[in-house]
Amino acid sequence: MAYDNQKHNNYIIQELVELFNKFPGIGPKSAQRLAYFTINQNHDEVKKFAETLLLVKEKIDLCAICQDFTIDQQCKCQDESKNRDLICVVEDPMDIIAIDNSNAYSGTFHVLHGVISPTQGIGPDDLKIKELIERIAASTSSIKEVIIATNPNLEGEATAMYITKMLEPFSVKVSRLARGLPSGGDLEYADGVTIGKAIEYRQEIEL
Amino acid sequence: MAYDNQKHNNYIIQELVELFNKFPGIGPKSAQRLAYFTINQNHDEVKKFAETLLLVKEKIDLCAICQDFTIDQQCKCQDESKNRDLICVVEDPMDIIAIDNSNAYSGTFHVLHGVISPTQGIGPDDLKIKELIERIAASTSSIKEVIIATNPNLEGEATAMYITKMLEPFSVKVSRLARGLPSGGDLEYADGVTIGKAIEYRQEIEL
Repeated sequence: MAYDNQKHNNYIIQELVELFNKFPGIGPKSAQRLAYFTINQNHDEVKKFAETLLLVKEKIDLCAICQDFTIDQQCKCQDESKNRDLICVVEDPMDIIAIDNSNAYSGTFHVLHGVISPTQGIGPDDLKIKELIERIAASTSSIKEVIIATNPNLEGEATAMYITKMLEPFSVKVSRLARGLPSGGDLEYADGVTIGKAIEYRQEIEL
Repeated sequence: MAYDNQKHNNYIIQELVELFNKFPGIGPKSAQRLAYFTINQNHDEVKKFAETLLLVKEKIDLCAICQDFTIDQQCKCQDESKNRDLICVVEDPMDIIAIDNSNAYSGTFHVLHGVISPTQGIGPDDLKIKELIERIAASTSSIKEVIIATNPNLEGEATAMYITKMLEPFSVKVSRLARGLPSGGDLEYADGVTIGKAIEYRQEIEL
């Protein structure tokens, strides 16, 4: 609708705008800006971008073990440096980067590729939960703890509860990331739920 | 830096993230989200996106007359329906869509492709001002008014003043979009400059 005027002559621009508009977080205005930026880039830059898109799609696969994106099954989850006692379960591959960047975790990961969300029609079978159970069943002796790092919201909690139940038959400890005040945050601006959790999970000060 | 962990195995993802990061308004986090969205799209969708990018780059050119993006020089500025008495001068092709969508303008356009900005090293010669002057010089009898629709900020005003001076030798009326309160806006939340302009340019109520 908003682009009807452009449609006759510039239908290719319009098509590119619509393709950009499909990306998450990209509205019609941003899509337009990105399309026009593309037009202003030089030919080699656009060619490289197009080629990289195709290459990524061609080369990237899911790791058979941790379900993270990987190339030719040479996943970093198999690195010798990783602590194989621990599996950290995350919603998305992006979460792995966030956790890795904290430098606070040296174990392995398992990517669910989503969370249980009845409103969006996503059930346990749509996620990589079966693969997690199989992974633990296959090497139960070496895995000591599963840290569930789904997001601290309704869907994340429900998914954590579901996985915890599924892991009951195995002799692994199941934990969840701590809830409380964010570091560097200001109490005055924290929401009630966060403050409530911070009080509920208060920690004894040891001298 | 933030992606060092990913670099070894997933250098192709990393490259795609960096390419997305070059787009305007796309920070490292968004770039990551867009790259991962691409990986999750099916092959045909990614192929179509890559092809459209290349097609746009190959087919789209600047119209020799109005400097808008066009295909094969068949620009809509030549439409019979356009009022050729008027030229509306805009910074970017996106502004044309915004003005067209207002349904308040039936004239032609001229795209500057930027504004004069000494801090960014953009002078009049970097813009399509020469082309505007030539266009008016070539058809001075038919063009009655040039509406300068650069953005209402420092650079936009400076560019409007520069163009106005350049158009002095020609017998065309030069105007600027009205300044005042935005429609649907709330006086309480309007900034001082906007209120100042609204008072300065107040209009008599005619009964």
